[in-house]
Amino acid sequence: MDWIIYCVLAASILALTFAFIFFKQMMKEDEGTDLMKKIAAHVRKGAMAYLKQQYKVVTIVFVVLAVVFFVMSLFDLQNGIVWFAFLTGGFFSGLAGFFGMKTATYASARTANAARKSLNSGLKVAFRSGAVMGLVVVGLALLDVAVWYLVLTKTGLLEAVGAKADLITITTTMLTFGMGASTQALFARVGGGIYTKAADVGADLVGKTEFNIPEDDPRNPATIADNVGDNVGDVAGMGADLYESYAGSILATMALGASAFATAAVEMQTKAVFAPMMIAAVGVLLSIIGIYLVKTKEDAGMKQLLGALSRGTNTAAVLIAAATFGIMYYLFGDSTEFPNMWWQTSLSVVVGLIAGVIIGKATEYYTSQSYKPTQKVAESSKTGPATVIISGLGLGMLSTAIPVVTVGIAIVLAYLCANGFNIEFNAANLSRGLYGIGIAAVGMLSTLGITLATDAYGPIADNAGGNAEMSGLEPEVRKRTDALDALGNTTAATGKGFAIGSAALTALALLASYVEEIKIALVRVGQDLPNGVETAKATLVDFMEAYNVNLMNPIVLVGVFIGAMMAFVFCGMTMNAVGRAAQKMVEEVRRQFSTIKGILEGKAEPDYERCVAISTKGAQQEMLVPSILAILVPIIVGVVLGVPGVMGLLIGGLSTGFVLAVFMANSGGAWDNAKKYVEEGNFGGKGSDNHKATVVGDTVGDPFKDTSGPSLNILIKLMSMVSIVMAGLTATFHLL
Amino acid sequence: MDWIIYCVLAASILALTFAFIFFKQMMKEDEGTDLMKKIAAHVRKGAMAYLKQQYKVVTIVFVVLAVVFFVMSLFDLQNGIVWFAFLTGGFFSGLAGFFGMKTATYASARTANAARKSLNSGLKVAFRSGAVMGLVVVGLALLDVAVWYLVLTKTGLLEAVGAKADLITITTTMLTFGMGASTQALFARVGGGIYTKAADVGADLVGKTEFNIPEDDPRNPATIADNVGDNVGDVAGMGADLYESYAGSILATMALGASAFATAAVEMQTKAVFAPMMIAAVGVLLSIIGIYLVKTKEDAGMKQLLGALSRGTNTAAVLIAAATFGIMYYLFGDSTEFPNMWWQTSLSVVVGLIAGVIIGKATEYYTSQSYKPTQKVAESSKTGPATVIISGLGLGMLSTAIPVVTVGIAIVLAYLCANGFNIEFNAANLSRGLYGIGIAAVGMLSTLGITLATDAYGPIADNAGGNAEMSGLEPEVRKRTDALDALGNTTAATGKGFAIGSAALTALALLASYVEEIKIALVRVGQDLPNGVETAKATLVDFMEAYNVNLMNPIVLVGVFIGAMMAFVFCGMTMNAVGRAAQKMVEEVRRQFSTIKGILEGKAEPDYERCVAISTKGAQQEMLVPSILAILVPIIVGVVLGVPGVMGLLIGGLSTGFVLAVFMANSGGAWDNAKKYVEEGNFGGKGSDNHKATVVGDTVGDPFKDTSGPSLNILIKLMSMVSIVMAGLTATFHLL
Repeated sequence: MDWIIYCVLAASILALTFAFIFFKQMMKEDEGTDLMKKIAAHVRKGAMAYLKQQYKVVTIVFVVLAVVFFVMSLFDLQNGIVWFAFLTGGFFSGLAGFFGMKTATYASARTANAARKSLNSGLKVAFRSGAVMGLVVVGLALLDVAVWYLVLTKTGLLEAVGAKADLITITTTMLTFGMGASTQALFARVGGGIYTKAADVGADLVGKTEFNIPEDDPRNPATIADNVGDNVGDVAGMGADLYESYAGSILATMALGASAFATAAVEMQTKAVFAPMMIAAVGVLLSIIGIYLVKTKEDAGMKQLLGALSRGTNTAAVLIAAATFGIMYYLFGDSTEFPNMWWQTSLSVVVGLIAGVIIGKATEYYTSQSYKPTQKVAESSKTGPATVIISGLGLGMLSTAIPVVTVGIAIVLAYLCANGFNIEFNAANLSRGLYGIGIAAVGMLSTLGITLATDAYGPIADNAGGNAEMSGLEPEVRKRTDALDALGNTTAATGKGFAIGSAALTALALLASYVEEIKIALVRVGQDLPNGVETAKATLVDFMEAYNVNLMNPIVLVGVFIGAMMAFVFCGMTMNAVGRAAQKMVEEVRRQFSTIKGILEGKAEPDYERCVAISTKGAQQEMLVPSILAILVPIIVGVVLGVPGVMGLLIGGLSTGFVLAVFMANSGGAWDNAKKYVEEGNFGGKGSDNHKATVVGDTVGDPFKDTSGPSLNILIKLMSMVSIVMAGLTATFHLL
Repeated sequence: MDWIIYCVLAASILALTFAFIFFKQMMKEDEGTDLMKKIAAHVRKGAMAYLKQQYKVVTIVFVVLAVVFFVMSLFDLQNGIVWFAFLTGGFFSGLAGFFGMKTATYASARTANAARKSLNSGLKVAFRSGAVMGLVVVGLALLDVAVWYLVLTKTGLLEAVGAKADLITITTTMLTFGMGASTQALFARVGGGIYTKAADVGADLVGKTEFNIPEDDPRNPATIADNVGDNVGDVAGMGADLYESYAGSILATMALGASAFATAAVEMQTKAVFAPMMIAAVGVLLSIIGIYLVKTKEDAGMKQLLGALSRGTNTAAVLIAAATFGIMYYLFGDSTEFPNMWWQTSLSVVVGLIAGVIIGKATEYYTSQSYKPTQKVAESSKTGPATVIISGLGLGMLSTAIPVVTVGIAIVLAYLCANGFNIEFNAANLSRGLYGIGIAAVGMLSTLGITLATDAYGPIADNAGGNAEMSGLEPEVRKRTDALDALGNTTAATGKGFAIGSAALTALALLASYVEEIKIALVRVGQDLPNGVETAKATLVDFMEAYNVNLMNPIVLVGVFIGAMMAFVFCGMTMNAVGRAAQKMVEEVRRQFSTIKGILEGKAEPDYERCVAISTKGAQQEMLVPSILAILVPIIVGVVLGVPGVMGLLIGGLSTGFVLAVFMANSGGAWDNAKKYVEEGNFGGKGSDNHKATVVGDTVGDPFKDTSGPSLNILIKLMSMVSIVMAGLTATFHLL
């Protein structure tokens, strides 16, 4: 069976190899005129400077946390590997963002240059560069998972630090490197999100609204910062984010597999642990195939391009569904204990995939200007900015219905499929059902290699447009990059559906891992459950009864309240952070417009550097408090309210956070596209009062969809991860 | 002991008598000039016409629901009194709104006229009129409670329909008239909220923003509709809303008392049922005393007036805290079984009162222009409407922290105080703890007679300002009414804190009543619990175990998700409703401005009636779907997911709804006052671009704070009430 883990290792190296090949291919393209090169270099320099600064701050946080974990291990509150596993998770997550961003900053000018030839050439360069990011993320994540698995099973490291080396301990220890990834991701999303939106909002408010100069105009001092922002927020932030989702879903499902089949034969348990890794490994192959399927004739129009992209992602999705049946048959087809498990678990994966598609389609329906909802937001501009905001908020709130109902049905179906359609609530059915929920999330994310490519190439095209504008290329080029960007928005909707849906499912899976970790902690200190049940023999259901984790327990309810609040407070903090940072940017841009003579006529060059510095400083200052809050609150709740409080907190944060995230993402997307719809010539077109009203909507939507909204997914999982890592503390000490 | 219930009856009649006296006093005041009378008559006519129309629609809904309940009783799914009790709750709730509104429409011109004399005279008329509403609400609610209690205990009606006549059945049957009140309240809040904000937003968008004419200018065709709206939304809607909160908290606590002391002596149980009614009855007396304390010297300034109002509410609050100890000592002081109960339960009430004050102060801090947060929102107008929206949303989200933490601490403390500081989770501690949570809510609302007066007089002053403006009174009068309005906003903040806090606590109490009702339903059909425990002997904790209402059960989690979604979808629907109705109003106002010649010069009279008709029609069309959804979803969830699904739904709705409600109320309040802060001459003052930016914020805030936000409190409780009434169905039939 060991060959499987080596295959996973091979798949990760394959992903990284293809990423390298695509990177080299992209680098061979011509970067265009000297001005294009210069602008790209400017953006690259700003982005790297920011990332360096960000990594400095994050490193300090990581060192502090690692020391805390190390000290905890001395007091038997955690095993002695966690502190180091945590660091590797953070390191690889950061690395994924770094490589993705490096590629993106090299690709933008090249994409713009290629778009001078044709739409198709532009697509090729941008999409292949996006694929670099997609493959780096899955490659590094699988590498980290496979190597850690090998180290913990082969080297006796766990025994060396005094822990048991059974599969449950191994998989839950590996989960803690997920906390590293989540922490890194939160900082990247929040910091990058604040950076990019401060620059974007700042640039728009003065440039577009006050001085009526177009987007990405080189006369606007915040333009470079805006383009840097696209890279650090939308690329590096997204890379770290999806690294976390991808690794998190695999790790959580491995842990669920280990505990669900703890009483079965060891071989069965091992296979259950291998299943998510195998699906992911096959997903890498299918992603690479999918990436190669994305090509069209040289003179292809928008429709053919969209078809090409969809062909790539859809083929990968259909193939992974089919492949899952094969993998499961191989692993479990000969099981006498669970004869139907192979197809039942496969059905759970199919449920996950279908749910992802439905959420993606719903996202598209609510946020694309091809459909009524966004058109109505555009129409409400006839009565000014206030009604644009009201209708956009209303749309976002309403749009939560389909995703929530879909996730709800998916949870129940994935659960029932995996446990043989057994509704009876007992420990065995519960564990296997939860494993089904976890593996549905893994299925959703298994083709991340290609879905992330369709997501990541959007910002590259966006940046290419910026480069084209600033370099004064023919307007045709800008039109093409805009078309590529718009194309990306549509395909990215599906990707986002998968990301959000999988986050909800993974968070549920992590809930079970939390209980498992409490169990390990109690066993480590040799303590029975509060109601006297022997810990080693206790099931998930026993834990619920022993800790009274039911809905009549006021401690649980208080936890749920605090979780719901956390989602809002976190968003409030990040929204305000963007507001404050943007305000500083506005003041700087206004200052430059009024003090640097000839700037508006294009005769004098604005001081781009200063705007970059303002965004960098603003983001660094503002990202710390919300991120640290996300780490501290689960610890405080654990120490004060104990296990029932923590579980309430996680459920409250998950449910409210999920709904709030969908609301914010869709409101933001709809405002963005409502503006584009008006710019396409509807309701007065560009420059009209209606257009100005939709620009207000778009500006409000910026932090919604690119800062606060996407950070929520990470917040939800980070709170779970922190609770898991801190379980030792909560299990042995709490006030109530 | 029966004398207590007659005292409660007497208190209710006392409240109604004083309401009548204050009404008569107000009616004796001079209504001012002929023009003032004419305008007041216009508004009165529009308001009454709307209410008539609304009651027609609501009657149909009530008849349908009553028939459903009647049919359910034929199938033993409910007892045979529910359908009628339901109707009386709805009737009295509607009546409270009706009387309040009638008073308000008579009071506005009289307040304006009195304000010509002095600020103090204006306050007196407006505040006494608000007191009519406050006393009518508490009077009618106590009347309904006391009469039903007498009927059910004295007449043998329950036995006549084949039900047991023990205290548990009596109190849970009475709870169902709470569903009538909640249903009526939701329609009143949603319908009235849509009406008032459609008119307000419509009037502002065209009048203030496009034509630069002041608020309440008689040239604006939507002015009368706007003033009608203040009455139907802010007065009638609020009256029905608080009737529901007040009655709901008393009824829920009575039911908790009956079940918490079910195994104690009957006398003890009866006393526990009487306690909330007695606190409420004493609260009526103290409210009347408080109302008489609100007076100042004739030449009083703002500060003295604020002092006078605070003196009234604070005295009532302090006295009720003291009186509670007396009441509890009288009831439980001689108990040998529970020797410390009297002071322990009293402490729960004190906890509730303190929590209400803290939430109120936090509300004031976040929404008053005297403090930094709102001033910062005003300052963000320097960079345009987009940053006003972003900072207002950020503020609202952040402002949820203090109320949630306060309610969390209050839940734990009220629970622990009432059960003798016993953290151990068992049925006895749980029941007594929940009783403590319920009685804390009763304490919070016990002085509603006066706190509602400070809340209700705001819209009256607002309307008086409208009347003054339209009648062309001296500007000094408008300034005075504005000052009264602003004063009301500050005192109302505390009232809102009590209302929101008590809603959360009451909803928790209703959760226990739901389980109790499931128990009664199972006993009625002679069914044991799913795990075989005999129903009649089962405790709350047994129910949690039998139905697996724990946080690892995916059914519970799906319920929590749907509950969280419901809060958002409901708000989305009402936001969109306001948007749509406002758009129609804008089009009508624009049409009148362009087709009626001389309207802008004040030479021709606008067609007010048409605007009134548009708001009426819009509100009627738009209120149905969200309200019916709120009734249907708990039924569907119950039938599909059963008891664990419903409890998940209620907790998800409660937690997310509570946080969302605080967020929307505070964002809306801050935007409103940020605008006022600019109008006071800051950041450019009236007419500046900054002012226009804050008007956008205020317009967005209108549906936030007056439609969607306040409806959420009712939604939360209505969903609980529907679940309780439908428990018979859920207990005997569900799919999963």
